Amino acid sequence: MSNFGFLYLRVVNPYEVAFREARSAVGASALLASAEEFQSVAEAVADCALVVGTTAVGRRELQHPVRRLPEGARLIRKRLRSSHVALLFGSEKVGLSNEALSHCHWLMRIPTREEHRSVNLGQAVAICLYELARDSHAARPPERQKLATAVELERIAAVLLDALRTSGYLKPRSAALSVEKLRRLIRRLGLSAGDAEVCLGMLRQIVWKLHSGKDSPG
Amino acid sequence: MSNFGFLYLRVVNPYEVAFREARSAVGASALLASAEEFQSVAEAVADCALVVGTTAVGRRELQHPVRRLPEGARLIRKRLRSSHVALLFGSEKVGLSNEALSHCHWLMRIPTREEHRSVNLGQAVAICLYELARDSHAARPPERQKLATAVELERIAAVLLDALRTSGYLKPRSAALSVEKLRRLIRRLGLSAGDAEVCLGMLRQIVWKLHSGKDSPG
Repeated sequence: MSNFGFLYLRVVNPYEVAFREARSAVGASALLASAEEFQSVAEAVADCALVVGTTAVGRRELQHPVRRLPEGARLIRKRLRSSHVALLFGSEKVGLSNEALSHCHWLMRIPTREEHRSVNLGQAVAICLYELARDSHAARPPERQKLATAVELERIAAVLLDALRTSGYLKPRSAALSVEKLRRLIRRLGLSAGDAEVCLGMLRQIVWKLHSGKDSPG
Repeated sequence: MSNFGFLYLRVVNPYEVAFREARSAVGASALLASAEEFQSVAEAVADCALVVGTTAVGRRELQHPVRRLPEGARLIRKRLRSSHVALLFGSEKVGLSNEALSHCHWLMRIPTREEHRSVNLGQAVAICLYELARDSHAARPPERQKLATAVELERIAAVLLDALRTSGYLKPRSAALSVEKLRRLIRRLGLSAGDAEVCLGMLRQIVWKLHSGKDSPG
């Protein structure tokens, strides 16, 4: 991270022993000392307008668009001009959980040969950040619209969930699965900050009305 | 190495303990088992037409031309079409010796920020080989999802409009303006055909519930 100028590390529930040992990493002690710890992925990415997960691509991730690193990095660089972007890495052994994946807008994979796809975690981070910094001195095209942040999208998800439960669209038993589906769907929309605000306003009014009618026989 | 399809490892006077431990590397045991050991750099690179050293660039190496990795990799790929090429890495702590450097045609460095040039050995190897393999597979155009048609989007707009009117979000007088705003907003989402269907289902259920509560005092 420090090699390529990425100085903001956020860790979610780190394994304390390994994390403390890592504080001795050569040349990057300041970066590690200022790393922020979070209890959940949702909190860690709250102020990010784009959340990209990394994967070696297994069957379970087919619900997300998957981009090769060179193409993905191009999109991330564009977005970095106007917003914070989170690049999410899972644990060495099991990668990202489905819950963590549900916070991602899309996934990115390092192109490898078919026969050996799984990349060591430290090397995967280094390769991704190298690619992101690779053309950092290229000419900058104009700024794009500001996207909604993760916390704004979570607000929409929460109110929409309320509407879907109140209206009977979501059945209580399958709730956990559907929340993740909902989260992915919302992220696929690529809402701007302005549109997110409008959507939230609509949904809040609808939910208010749904609840105000609850006492009725229907 | 194995991730990026580089299957020929040559080691010069390896530290036996570390080298034997490395034989357990996940997914690369065949590569390590077939690694060749040499007594000197000269013997290790004997059949190579190009020898490229890697460096974080200190003063002592100025006797060699130094190329940035993206440019250097381009030259190496050209040469690889007709000959063997050696990419030389030094030890983690001291890098390549002057003797080793003397076997190199030129040197290559990974572009990093000035303040932190020294890259971890395993990460440096991964980054260099990623760059060498980076353009080897013609970039496949990403598969694009089938987008919702105009008629599907209009259905969503109509049901959403119903929900907004029933809930009191839309005031009757400004209705025309808001319908157009709504239509533009829906088009900005770039909904896939599948997502459009899910959204329509959600909205229909919400509208059904809104209407079923209409008789209530609220």
